[in-house]
Amino acid sequence: MTPTARLKSRSPIHEFDLIRTLQQRHRRTDPSVIRGIGDDAAVVTSQARRWSLLTTDLLTEGIHFDLRTATMADIGFRAAVANLSDIAAMGGTPQYLLVSLAIPRTGTRQHVLQFYKGMMTACRPYHVTLIGGDTSASANGWFIGLTLVGTTTPHKALLRSGARAGDLLYLTGTIGDAEAGLRLLNEQFGKTRPPHTAKLSARYRQFLVKRHLRPTARLAEGQWLSAHRFATSAIDVSDGLSGDLRHICQESHVGADLDVGSLPLSLACRAYAASRRLDPVALALAGGEDYELLFTLSPRHRSEVERAAKLRQFCITCIGTIRPAQQGIQAIGQDGTKRPLPNSSYQHFR
Amino acid sequence: MTPTARLKSRSPIHEFDLIRTLQQRHRRTDPSVIRGIGDDAAVVTSQARRWSLLTTDLLTEGIHFDLRTATMADIGFRAAVANLSDIAAMGGTPQYLLVSLAIPRTGTRQHVLQFYKGMMTACRPYHVTLIGGDTSASANGWFIGLTLVGTTTPHKALLRSGARAGDLLYLTGTIGDAEAGLRLLNEQFGKTRPPHTAKLSARYRQFLVKRHLRPTARLAEGQWLSAHRFATSAIDVSDGLSGDLRHICQESHVGADLDVGSLPLSLACRAYAASRRLDPVALALAGGEDYELLFTLSPRHRSEVERAAKLRQFCITCIGTIRPAQQGIQAIGQDGTKRPLPNSSYQHFR
Repeated sequence: MTPTARLKSRSPIHEFDLIRTLQQRHRRTDPSVIRGIGDDAAVVTSQARRWSLLTTDLLTEGIHFDLRTATMADIGFRAAVANLSDIAAMGGTPQYLLVSLAIPRTGTRQHVLQFYKGMMTACRPYHVTLIGGDTSASANGWFIGLTLVGTTTPHKALLRSGARAGDLLYLTGTIGDAEAGLRLLNEQFGKTRPPHTAKLSARYRQFLVKRHLRPTARLAEGQWLSAHRFATSAIDVSDGLSGDLRHICQESHVGADLDVGSLPLSLACRAYAASRRLDPVALALAGGEDYELLFTLSPRHRSEVERAAKLRQFCITCIGTIRPAQQGIQAIGQDGTKRPLPNSSYQHFR
Repeated sequence: MTPTARLKSRSPIHEFDLIRTLQQRHRRTDPSVIRGIGDDAAVVTSQARRWSLLTTDLLTEGIHFDLRTATMADIGFRAAVANLSDIAAMGGTPQYLLVSLAIPRTGTRQHVLQFYKGMMTACRPYHVTLIGGDTSASANGWFIGLTLVGTTTPHKALLRSGARAGDLLYLTGTIGDAEAGLRLLNEQFGKTRPPHTAKLSARYRQFLVKRHLRPTARLAEGQWLSAHRFATSAIDVSDGLSGDLRHICQESHVGADLDVGSLPLSLACRAYAASRRLDPVALALAGGEDYELLFTLSPRHRSEVERAAKLRQFCITCIGTIRPAQQGIQAIGQDGTKRPLPNSSYQHFR
């Protein structure tokens, strides 16, 4: 985990100084951390009778982010949420973060500090401790690798594999917003061109862009679903609903009926789709990175879960039913017709 | 941890198929792994009365490796060793591995499989289980991020911060070999040009290239030092001896005298340096990635440790003494003269 000295010869950033600055800036007193940043490996105590959760995500410049449409702080925030959301989808509590950063020649100290600031802003509400990482030069663009460690009670982790035919399919929050926000940014920074007639209120615009740049990991929802053993399976929507529902079906060996008319779409997302003459449902199915939770539960828990969610101000929507595997994954249109759910992104669907 | 669907649209690799292939190929039955690859996060049981070790390393194309001079299997092997070596330097036992891979358009399925093969070859002797990762497209070159989780007995982790003035400074194995091996490869593939007179036996060449491409993590040595509480501090030599000694001194708030004449240099490394008219000591001080362990111990354990090392066929060499911080880090030349140890790479020193 020693940061590679090669950085020094290739970048204006004096890495060891930088690491010391970051250590001081993001220091937290966590009694379970014996040794954080600054050794060959971080050392943490193990908790008896707990399960550990480990997730890793990588983001690469030009694929996952573009410095024309997002600041380094936004990128850090989103990188953290991608990982926090994986822990949320397991019903766990995040604890420790490790960060790998490959910095191109154009990267400055300020870029790195802003990245950490954004990342730690997303982590702070959950008391996540930064315990290590690696920093290096990059010959081509930024690369970001985050590993997040969490914890959960044994036998309460929400897996993708527990859905059973007859279970109901639920979604937290609304979907399609992050995709609409990204498209708005692409239009604003000249990467794509909006139709001449396209109009959208500033409030909607702001909402959608924020949903893209500063998404929310549904940790409270995931922990609640896990603690009460409500959910039979769960996943976070990071690839797009269509792809993520497919993962649940594959891992649980089931099919599903997705009720397209009941998809939770925000007013802003609907307004964006209308202004661009797009199908909001297609946007919602294909667009990724909303970081909402898709989960299943037995119909006998339905009323209990819906009542309890309301009490906690959790927004959840029933969007379909789990079916036997041989029925495949079907989308039920608003007219009641069934057709196979399209798999690939950006296909028109109604 | 869901692999990003974006890969599909940009690369010929069908990622989910690929992950399934890798899962099957590298499956191990480890009862502590509740859920490995295939969910939002991996789930492992915690061990009571143990400490966990976490380390992460990143490698980027054009900085850490070059596909002209190394195969994907070599790169995978070295990436694993970089992490295994961090666990070795803590005196720990490696357990779980997570792998992030950003694949450029030129990357093929075969590249990825070879990378995993090399990586798992390095991990197999230590029964490390592959529990997760992330895969994505890359707009610019390969990017590899590995996170390794290990375990150790509480209070026995070898930290960088325990060296005390008067302690002896030791090194396992020989150093400078990996740097010589890298330079040989650079010459062979026309990246640099050897002097006309340069000659080196095939056996030496092979030894040095292997030390670069297939280094050894000193796990047995680290565990032995930790179990018997011999070492007061330890680090692995990944940045070059000069830089890594500096880390120990900084973290322990001490200085050091490094006895340059006693540095353990292989015959092959000496022969390479002679053939290129280089100073072998400069090569050894600056060249990184030997993955040997640099450690300190109290002089009262000297004879016990040296005897015990011999019995176990561990090659260790005393290369200096820890001094009070105000004396700084000095190199003692073969003629007995002291001068400050150069910090930067590739400076002539004798």
